[in-house]
Amino acid sequence: MAEGVRDRMVAGAVRLLAQQGLQATSFSEVLQVTGAPRGSIYHHFPGGKDQLVAAAVDAAGDHALRVLEPLAGASPEKITEAFLGLWRLLLERTDNTAGCAVLAVTVATRSGDLLDRAGEAFRRWRTRLAELLAEGGLPDAEAFAATLVAATEGAVVMARAERSTAPFDAVAAYLLSQVRANATG
Amino acid sequence: MAEGVRDRMVAGAVRLLAQQGLQATSFSEVLQVTGAPRGSIYHHFPGGKDQLVAAAVDAAGDHALRVLEPLAGASPEKITEAFLGLWRLLLERTDNTAGCAVLAVTVATRSGDLLDRAGEAFRRWRTRLAELLAEGGLPDAEAFAATLVAATEGAVVMARAERSTAPFDAVAAYLLSQVRANATG
Repeated sequence: MAEGVRDRMVAGAVRLLAQQGLQATSFSEVLQVTGAPRGSIYHHFPGGKDQLVAAAVDAAGDHALRVLEPLAGASPEKITEAFLGLWRLLLERTDNTAGCAVLAVTVATRSGDLLDRAGEAFRRWRTRLAELLAEGGLPDAEAFAATLVAATEGAVVMARAERSTAPFDAVAAYLLSQVRANATG
Repeated sequence: MAEGVRDRMVAGAVRLLAQQGLQATSFSEVLQVTGAPRGSIYHHFPGGKDQLVAAAVDAAGDHALRVLEPLAGASPEKITEAFLGLWRLLLERTDNTAGCAVLAVTVATRSGDLLDRAGEAFRRWRTRLAELLAEGGLPDAEAFAATLVAATEGAVVMARAERSTAPFDAVAAYLLSQVRANATG
């Protein structure tokens, strides 16, 4: 039960960070969207807001990795589609108002610990993508995986600014055409 | 002279937004880094912080376009190198602590006007890049231009999080290899 409250708060923080950035994400709002009691702050996050944000960055990192796990053995095209699809769905569900919590934290913090965690999330994504893509027969999988993560992150921001999935879809189509042209599997 | 103060304040806001995000960028800090007198706020930006941020987003958009202007008639490889080089230099000069002001505003605002300006900056970049790349003989120039802007934006964030240009360089190398493989010019 206590664990449930903590998880709900972390998930709420991920959503708020993705939607409104680091500074606008407050404990009060996290309590409001999760219905957690005020005492949960001191109980679960005695280190304050940075501790909650750190947990949110880790959770956002884990989430994308979990989406990739069932794709071991899949074709490079399917793997690329799955990673792009995760972000496309977020844009769709939020009417292009939300993006990546890890990116939002990176561009608004000077905390070495938060940057370390954000860097680790990005690194884990592109490392796991590179492994899966290489197993699926994609040449130059490391460089493509780094580009896939970078381009997806940037395309989500462009879609939010333009309040349209069009720029995201253009980028996704280009990346998929590259995978189809280069995959040997 | 009055124009000089306004321009300095806008340039200062671009730098602060790029380094610490939207909320942490205050009028006080802009005055501090630019040495502008306090009265300049009400004189040049009677609409408040949003007006200064709007001018900064526009200025950041203009800046990248000005860097591209001398490249009319250049090869797709040179054009791609120039756009990537602009961001690589920013990372180098700031020891991987600064990024894109337009992106920083996008992920931390709910203002329709600021999002419009940010969307316009991204759109102008990829439209101009697509024109230049198509003139240089690159097939599928629109899709590549959108991917170049998106991947560059994302790679800059990854470099900031990892406090290393390594992820940016991996993405840049991949994009340049694509241009070299596809350019017919």
